[in-house]
Amino acid sequence: MKTIDLNCDMGESFGAWTMGQDDAVLAHVTSANIACGFHAGDPATMRRTVAAAAAHGVAIGAHPSLPDLAGFGRREMRISADEAHAITLYQIGALDAMARAAGTRLHHVKPHGALYNMAAKDRALADAIAAAVRAFDASLMLVGLAASELPRAGERAGLAVAHEAFADRRYEGDGSLMARGKAGAVIDDVDAAVAQAIAIATRGEADSAGGPLAIRADTICVHGDRADAATFAKRLREGLEAAGVAVAALKGGRA
Amino acid sequence: MKTIDLNCDMGESFGAWTMGQDDAVLAHVTSANIACGFHAGDPATMRRTVAAAAAHGVAIGAHPSLPDLAGFGRREMRISADEAHAITLYQIGALDAMARAAGTRLHHVKPHGALYNMAAKDRALADAIAAAVRAFDASLMLVGLAASELPRAGERAGLAVAHEAFADRRYEGDGSLMARGKAGAVIDDVDAAVAQAIAIATRGEADSAGGPLAIRADTICVHGDRADAATFAKRLREGLEAAGVAVAALKGGRA
Amino acid sequence: MKTIDLNCDMGESFGAWTMGQDDAVLAHVTSANIACGFHAGDPATMRRTVAAAAAHGVAIGAHPSLPDLAGFGRREMRISADEAHAITLYQIGALDAMARAAGTRLHHVKPHGALYNMAAKDRALADAIAAAVRAFDASLMLVGLAASELPRAGERAGLAVAHEAFADRRYEGDGSLMARGKAGAVIDDVDAAVAQAIAIATRGEADSAGGPLAIRADTICVHGDRADAATFAKRLREGLEAAGVAVAALKGGRA
Amino acid sequence: MKTIDLNCDMGESFGAWTMGQDDAVLAHVTSANIACGFHAGDPATMRRTVAAAAAHGVAIGAHPSLPDLAGFGRREMRISADEAHAITLYQIGALDAMARAAGTRLHHVKPHGALYNMAAKDRALADAIAAAVRAFDASLMLVGLAASELPRAGERAGLAVAHEAFADRRYEGDGSLMARGKAGAVIDDVDAAVAQAIAIATRGEADSAGGPLAIRADTICVHGDRADAATFAKRLREGLEAAGVAVAALKGGRA
Repeated sequence: MKTIDLNCDMGESFGAWTMGQDDAVLAHVTSANIACGFHAGDPATMRRTVAAAAAHGVAIGAHPSLPDLAGFGRREMRISADEAHAITLYQIGALDAMARAAGTRLHHVKPHGALYNMAAKDRALADAIAAAVRAFDASLMLVGLAASELPRAGERAGLAVAHEAFADRRYEGDGSLMARGKAGAVIDDVDAAVAQAIAIATRGEADSAGGPLAIRADTICVHGDRADAATFAKRLREGLEAAGVAVAALKGGRA
Repeated sequence: MKTIDLNCDMGESFGAWTMGQDDAVLAHVTSANIACGFHAGDPATMRRTVAAAAAHGVAIGAHPSLPDLAGFGRREMRISADEAHAITLYQIGALDAMARAAGTRLHHVKPHGALYNMAAKDRALADAIAAAVRAFDASLMLVGLAASELPRAGERAGLAVAHEAFADRRYEGDGSLMARGKAGAVIDDVDAAVAQAIAIATRGEADSAGGPLAIRADTICVHGDRADAATFAKRLREGLEAAGVAVAALKGGRA
Repeated sequence: MKTIDLNCDMGESFGAWTMGQDDAVLAHVTSANIACGFHAGDPATMRRTVAAAAAHGVAIGAHPSLPDLAGFGRREMRISADEAHAITLYQIGALDAMARAAGTRLHHVKPHGALYNMAAKDRALADAIAAAVRAFDASLMLVGLAASELPRAGERAGLAVAHEAFADRRYEGDGSLMARGKAGAVIDDVDAAVAQAIAIATRGEADSAGGPLAIRADTICVHGDRADAATFAKRLREGLEAAGVAVAALKGGRA
Repeated sequence: MKTIDLNCDMGESFGAWTMGQDDAVLAHVTSANIACGFHAGDPATMRRTVAAAAAHGVAIGAHPSLPDLAGFGRREMRISADEAHAITLYQIGALDAMARAAGTRLHHVKPHGALYNMAAKDRALADAIAAAVRAFDASLMLVGLAASELPRAGERAGLAVAHEAFADRRYEGDGSLMARGKAGAVIDDVDAAVAQAIAIATRGEADSAGGPLAIRADTICVHGDRADAATFAKRLREGLEAAGVAVAALKGGRA
């Protein structure tokens, strides 16, 4: 039986500002990537989000970002490999403290936003992130864009890795994500997104701008900033299970 | 034989700005309190400072602060006990990650600046900080102003605590530190400061504005922002040792 | 005929996070206090908010805050009078640039959150803020809590001042606002809040915890963070106008 | 008689951290580019620096940056043209407030660090910055890398522009600056740097990696972060004057 993880970015409120529907989404996903203060997630929000994820039995991951609150971590910054290493370590540690205090532990690390995209393409940056994860705890799993530099770096570092695919984003023929600016880049229709997730999970392929595309996916991302995030997560899970796919957090690493 | 610890705040550079003489001071002290990013200490500086402290065999502590870079953590902020708990956890975790990656572990936690002063007087805040330390790792030592609310809170939480005294600050008759604004509050003369440290370490007392004052001290602070910090640390250590006091990191907690 | 201003805090989104119903509220108020980046309001949000206010013909004011994004400027910080002067100048100037670029100019300054509350009670801080406003542009109006230190400081500095009252907050017998934590501190019922606004605007008095209280008010605050802010503003304006009160931006200063 | 301006970046301290030798350098330069809080320069530092520059009769310019304190504005960030416009306006306004309060006005705007380098190459970004300057005050002068996109954008916007050259940086054959990482990129020897400045000011040319290079320069940069910044500025001014070049702030714009 095929198994796949459903992950969602969470804890992206900050101080007086709220974002996402974390409590509702937690009922349907199996992994949570929790913001660590650099793009979102003040310490009190982190603590609350970790507690909520733990209460739902959802695997807790760090979601480290470039230091860019005003840009929500979505603007590429030219940082050095050393800086990438240091900011990754810092954020993993901060979230791990919340997990320990809640009686649990981190399960995985998935970079956020521009750091995720940069690490998919830049080998030196990907290696620096993987080295930071390994230096912190070699049993943590590293999550990155399927078939990109980041999971490759994780494997070189001896980490368990997870390849991530997207239900609601269109792929280019080379396996990269279509840029958000392009028409059709985001699959708004829930049925179509569920269909793409099922195709990826069961047949290991998706339609792309260049025709059928092979995609290895261990985990599928639920975008927490969709207005319908909770419904979307629920439909995705039901659709996958109806198609005979088990939805469960990833084994390997500590899990 | 009497034993006392010499501690110094470190890692207080930030990005392009440098502060302190960390490498020179590390040769003479036995504990380092390392800034965690909220008042100073970007992630790369933290990583470098942890490595330097580890190389000198100096006990590594977290030095969490109020979130106030522009004010260097010296301006009191009215934060809730929950906020104090969350920011303490966050910063301990971030520094602990640097320690783990360097193959070592945290030894103690000493709040910085205004948070230190507030926690000396405010029981609820002190309890929140102690609870955060305990939730993270019950074997960590909590360092606070001698005979103040913070070590009391640490004891209530079941933590090992260290009472801190000052060589180069004058005391009021009630055991509080004379406010920096007052004439004579800072003891600039190194000989006088060494003499005060020896009196505290050997006889458990210091002169104060109100006459002789009993002070229990487990650790003596070397202010890293003195222009002569490294010389001061060296003279302090030599003076204490010449007076028959052993200078060593604190036992208890993990040590 | 009595005239009163209706003001609302605005532009309190930040980056990816949104807050408030600015466009809907702008249809009903006569003054906008726009966040300047220290508690909310990134530069792009400021620019957009100024343009929207200008399009509605609403008087534009700066809403300077303590530097505390994570606390939304609501946590008191012990800053010096010099720091208060400098941060007020900085924020006024930043917003003024947005106003100039939009072909308009600032009309008033109203401190935000904890800075507002501190300036209501602390004469030295109030004087520092008033001096900064005057140093920038002596024709700007200074808005503060009615009968508090801030309008007094404004008068000492030779500025036009506006005394602010609240429709939806209960007063203590001494004219201060009941602390939000106390039962009944916020008047949730819109009819009751409108009635209080009318009593203030027409008779210069409100019920307080200590009985009838005389209140001079030049402007009434609409809390932009009420879930019903736009409706509330509309009802307030209609109620005041039905009671024979003209609702208009304040004259004096530049206006 | 040839005339050239000597400019220096200033006010790059932040809170408890100091940088540069502003007071000493101010005796020798004719223009100051003052940090506006995004890479350095808290409000109190800005206020102090403006007062010092005004006291020396040095032309005051805004030195806006990408929002990156930890990276000192030196890390490229992929911001949109709208973001560039908004952050430029914000920072110009903030510094202008300090100038107004000191009884003076801004004279020019020179982007800092990575924003300067990006604006030298990216026409859309350069246009956005020029538009922000113009929207704020069409009489301000825009300073950018000689012969790059930024002065071209300034001219398109109808602004007075100044082309900047460097005494202590080597040029590539195409007129760009040799990357700091390359051997020989920085001219440490003061005599050699003064000679390059004289060649640029009197003959409009410099040696480059590709042979003699024509350079139009209206202003020459003194790097404030050189350890010998004040001496360097003094030697540069004396050398230029001895070579028959008048050293004076730029006319045009408001001057």
